[in-house]
Amino acid sequence: MTRTVLESKSKTVVIGFDEPFCVIGERINPTGRKKLAAELEAGDFSTVEKDALEQVACGAMVLDVNAGVVYNSNPNPNETEPPLMTKVIQVVQGLVDVPLCIDSSVPAALEAGLAVAEGRPLLNSVTGEEDRLEAILPLVKKYNVPVVAISNDDSGISEDPDVRFAVAKKIVERAADFGIPAHDIVVDPLAMPVGAMATAGQQLFTLVRRLRDELGVNTTCGASNISFGLPHRHGINAAFLPMAIGAGMTSAIMNPIRPVEMEAIRAANFLMNHDANGSEWIGFSRVLDAVNEGTPFAQASQAAAASGRGRGGRRRRRS
Amino acid sequence: MTRTVLESKSKTVVIGFDEPFCVIGERINPTGRKKLAAELEAGDFSTVEKDALEQVACGAMVLDVNAGVVYNSNPNPNETEPPLMTKVIQVVQGLVDVPLCIDSSVPAALEAGLAVAEGRPLLNSVTGEEDRLEAILPLVKKYNVPVVAISNDDSGISEDPDVRFAVAKKIVERAADFGIPAHDIVVDPLAMPVGAMATAGQQLFTLVRRLRDELGVNTTCGASNISFGLPHRHGINAAFLPMAIGAGMTSAIMNPIRPVEMEAIRAANFLMNHDANGSEWIGFSRVLDAVNEGTPFAQASQAAAASGRGRGGRRRRRS
Repeated sequence: MTRTVLESKSKTVVIGFDEPFCVIGERINPTGRKKLAAELEAGDFSTVEKDALEQVACGAMVLDVNAGVVYNSNPNPNETEPPLMTKVIQVVQGLVDVPLCIDSSVPAALEAGLAVAEGRPLLNSVTGEEDRLEAILPLVKKYNVPVVAISNDDSGISEDPDVRFAVAKKIVERAADFGIPAHDIVVDPLAMPVGAMATAGQQLFTLVRRLRDELGVNTTCGASNISFGLPHRHGINAAFLPMAIGAGMTSAIMNPIRPVEMEAIRAANFLMNHDANGSEWIGFSRVLDAVNEGTPFAQASQAAAASGRGRGGRRRRRS
Repeated sequence: MTRTVLESKSKTVVIGFDEPFCVIGERINPTGRKKLAAELEAGDFSTVEKDALEQVACGAMVLDVNAGVVYNSNPNPNETEPPLMTKVIQVVQGLVDVPLCIDSSVPAALEAGLAVAEGRPLLNSVTGEEDRLEAILPLVKKYNVPVVAISNDDSGISEDPDVRFAVAKKIVERAADFGIPAHDIVVDPLAMPVGAMATAGQQLFTLVRRLRDELGVNTTCGASNISFGLPHRHGINAAFLPMAIGAGMTSAIMNPIRPVEMEAIRAANFLMNHDANGSEWIGFSRVLDAVNEGTPFAQASQAAAASGRGRGGRRRRRS
């Protein structure tokens, strides 16, 4: 049984074949978000705080944290990104109690994050590139954390799924050389845009099944890539996620503030028998009722979360 | 390659592993529709006409026709259903040019339908019950049509998927004794309500995969059964259908007038590489645009179909 165990200060999240699908919130990432990048350079963490609270309320079980801002004042991310990663993680951990996914292409930023993250975070990521394997796997071993393994290597991203499988296998084998077990490798087989490559969906489903059956590893992907460039892309995402879950995918890095995608995942959990008595679905259906009446999804989710705490928690007992 | 070939007067629809998912419209059925039942007994076919046109516009590739009205004036369906089946089929064939699925529990009504249906209809259905096998398989052979095989038998509907698989296998073998090939059997492995049986989704996906891999047959199901009794059931259906398609299901008997389910199926077709260049998705996205602006789905679909005819058809050339 493959179980990838993540921890925050006080919570454990298990990624696994017999667990509800693990939603990793992708919002705390300045890539393509100029306003957020400018805020972070200026030391303003208000958007990070809002994103952390909203994503968790909407159902993110893990939060990805990326601090990849290229400062106007200093273009060297090796100098600026590690301290910013430290700060963003401290802000997020001060607000929400979910495991983190420390996301950077700068090894020093990953190590800065590992030093400050509470519990057992997920490291994002290693690839099959030689310099990444040599830089990242020792960190994974030293901190005893799981890692996302992206199936590209020095030759780039192959359009051939057999090559991507072989890259994933190589990473799992190299990790084993470092004493890192396969259950701590979460493979990202790379979802390509189906609008550009007609076989992208089928490739992904086949790869996920092979990675599970042959390597016994958990899997993830940047889910919205599949619909890049297409009209009504949330409809594509909302079919893709259940299909990937049915094929065996166990997590995704995605935007949890979208009700259509979250509805699809919660329905898929139910259909995979990962929602005992449908209680999660029935609770979520009340959020959908509020959304149908015009309440924004994040707000409806936060209200439901607060009312849940009220029913079982302190406020009720105090009243 | 398993190909189940259906025909109307001039159109061919193939159910198969490498074909777009076959949507069989379920609306022309008086079961649970008292108003329709009363209309049919009174000889009023206006709802049938509306249902036929709307379902085809919304994307039904085949129309199920069920004439199972228990007449107030005559409680014997063996007398009333065959002539009503004949009449309903004539009305539907006069309006739309899609293959039909002749649906009855009364063998004489099935034969009446077979006698009047144009092309190569699908017969719905045989079960593993001895008297049904003996009554229906000769009709299937005589008229050389494909048949839906429901995986229950004289002991009822088993909750054990291995028993349901064994019933399907028995029907395929009995059909072979009559000279009916496996590619003309479309197995319905029976979708149970996931709200009542937590394993219902997983059972169905596993059965569909086995039926495809071990018996080489196409599959179908009454898709909305899966969500029976649950809140926001269209959200369950819209995850179930892509998951079933990913597992290998090739058709469903369902209500095509629901945009959520049809969006899920069209997205799944795209992700299965059964929508070349995404042209079907892009066309459908324009219908969704109209729905988002408040136009009912059936009306938006009919407008899109009419405009498609206008662009390539007579009206433009005449103007």
